[in-house]
Amino acid sequence: MVQSALDVAAIGNAIVDVLAHTEDSLLARLGVTKGVMTLVDADQAEEIYAALPPAVECSGGSAANTAAGIASLGGKAAFIGKVKADQLGAVFRHDLNSLGVAFTTSAAEDGPSTARCLVMVTPDAQRTMQTYLGAAVELSPADVDAAQIESAKVTYLEGYLWDPPAAKQAMLKAAELAHQAGRKVALSLSDPFCVGRHREEFLKLIDGHVDILFANEAEIAALYQCDFAQAVAQVKGAVEIAAVTRGELGSVALKGDLQVSIAAEKIERLVDTTGAGDLYAAGFLFGWTRNLDLGDCARLGGICAAEVISHMGPRPETNLARMSAVAQLLQA
Amino acid sequence: MVQSALDVAAIGNAIVDVLAHTEDSLLARLGVTKGVMTLVDADQAEEIYAALPPAVECSGGSAANTAAGIASLGGKAAFIGKVKADQLGAVFRHDLNSLGVAFTTSAAEDGPSTARCLVMVTPDAQRTMQTYLGAAVELSPADVDAAQIESAKVTYLEGYLWDPPAAKQAMLKAAELAHQAGRKVALSLSDPFCVGRHREEFLKLIDGHVDILFANEAEIAALYQCDFAQAVAQVKGAVEIAAVTRGELGSVALKGDLQVSIAAEKIERLVDTTGAGDLYAAGFLFGWTRNLDLGDCARLGGICAAEVISHMGPRPETNLARMSAVAQLLQA
Repeated sequence: MVQSALDVAAIGNAIVDVLAHTEDSLLARLGVTKGVMTLVDADQAEEIYAALPPAVECSGGSAANTAAGIASLGGKAAFIGKVKADQLGAVFRHDLNSLGVAFTTSAAEDGPSTARCLVMVTPDAQRTMQTYLGAAVELSPADVDAAQIESAKVTYLEGYLWDPPAAKQAMLKAAELAHQAGRKVALSLSDPFCVGRHREEFLKLIDGHVDILFANEAEIAALYQCDFAQAVAQVKGAVEIAAVTRGELGSVALKGDLQVSIAAEKIERLVDTTGAGDLYAAGFLFGWTRNLDLGDCARLGGICAAEVISHMGPRPETNLARMSAVAQLLQA
Repeated sequence: MVQSALDVAAIGNAIVDVLAHTEDSLLARLGVTKGVMTLVDADQAEEIYAALPPAVECSGGSAANTAAGIASLGGKAAFIGKVKADQLGAVFRHDLNSLGVAFTTSAAEDGPSTARCLVMVTPDAQRTMQTYLGAAVELSPADVDAAQIESAKVTYLEGYLWDPPAAKQAMLKAAELAHQAGRKVALSLSDPFCVGRHREEFLKLIDGHVDILFANEAEIAALYQCDFAQAVAQVKGAVEIAAVTRGELGSVALKGDLQVSIAAEKIERLVDTTGAGDLYAAGFLFGWTRNLDLGDCARLGGICAAEVISHMGPRPETNLARMSAVAQLLQA
């Protein structure tokens, strides 16, 4: 295996988040399902946006958040995803480039606008997401930079990318390139409803292409259609490494016969769970690229997730490398 | 005087803020002056933006922040200002409309994009602003809705609007309409450098058109070119009511022979001073429209300013009406 120029190449929907504090009653009134991601079309997005209180805009997208986390940890990351050449697309690009994340996928000149995710954060800090995919659906295999994939220790795929049809092929191409180069492929299951939409295909994808799997309890249960203990038993045989997050119960990491449960980090105040899974994956993968043992990978994941749920927005506001050094998991 | 449909009609630059945490060293490297607002052209804005870390976007603009504050206090507000018909313009419009602020100024279809203010928040919570005025310079007298001005108890003007030439005429038109309808005109001096650019004209404007003046210590000193005590003596003779903010020293309110000093509200944590003056003006003016006495107007201003400096961003995140009721300044 040649020297890795990148720690992680992440492929996902390029999305700007529109974050608003809302009451549960608004979710009820809009008829949206709490705690999950629902796809909406442009008109529905406009309608929901009009019903939202004042919001803030910040770059998001599951795999892009993970790439941002890797960079904040001091790692080298690239992101592959599609924005349009519009104002929000420029915002998205700035927010990755300014972290040192390589984001070289060309912007679409025509067609739908840059994707937006309307994130409603309720008083319990739970996030409910309505996503308009816009230009993100234009991602195609031609956008996959083979040199980046081949140089990355891990190629990280978000399950959400299974929704836009051409992007599916881009993911498969990336996974194949990664394996041909002797690299690892990681997948996040993203969302229980997303698993529901693509269950059979996800099982095949995992079987043929995935070395490291990230999921939360609801997602892994949706995948194997059984309870948590049974799902854990199944996933053990399916991938090399699996990490299953359990909210305030922490996470369980699995590798062969090894199974480690790590408690959740204590936080001062739970503000917004947006990005929790994405930053857990960032910490875990970064630990893996630095040869931490399984438990410390999970612990680093938990530290990164704890940072991101302590404030509004899906990306770290604190230098994660410094935080990890304080936790004595990584050298300063 | 007929019944007022509006408490405040605010006229200002329609701006989306781009907020980033930065170190003081970045300001030095970029050669920008700390703590003030500097106008930049499109190219300079791009260059500075490229040097900024990841940012969040939220609606701003001095007078628009004040209008948002009035709405959050339970008052009726309108805003007059110019965006372009682009993504950031739609964001700006949404964030006012969703608060119930009437914002009916048409968007420019052509020309420069919606104005952006690059706000660099340093670890001391001070904000330094680089503003690209974009479409905001297109505001003209034709955009002033006479019916709104005539129905508003106060027409509020931001000094920043003296920078774009056509907007000046819009402000003067609004001031004249307001006075013809027997209403009050308020002005914020906005920024010491802005005062420096327009000192002679501001003195004339105040003399001929302004009933209520808002300024901070640096601005009033720049206006009268003397020390604070002397400036206070001068402003007394120039306007009916003046409110001068002094940061952590609180504020001084003046009306005829009456002079009241109000201590600053205690806050848990100073995060970002962006919007402090704008929200002080909102609280003060709302108190005035509700016939509070001078000291309570200043106190309400201080409460609103304290809320906005306790978090990132220039607009309230908490319902100000509820906060004021708790402070027993207004009825719940």
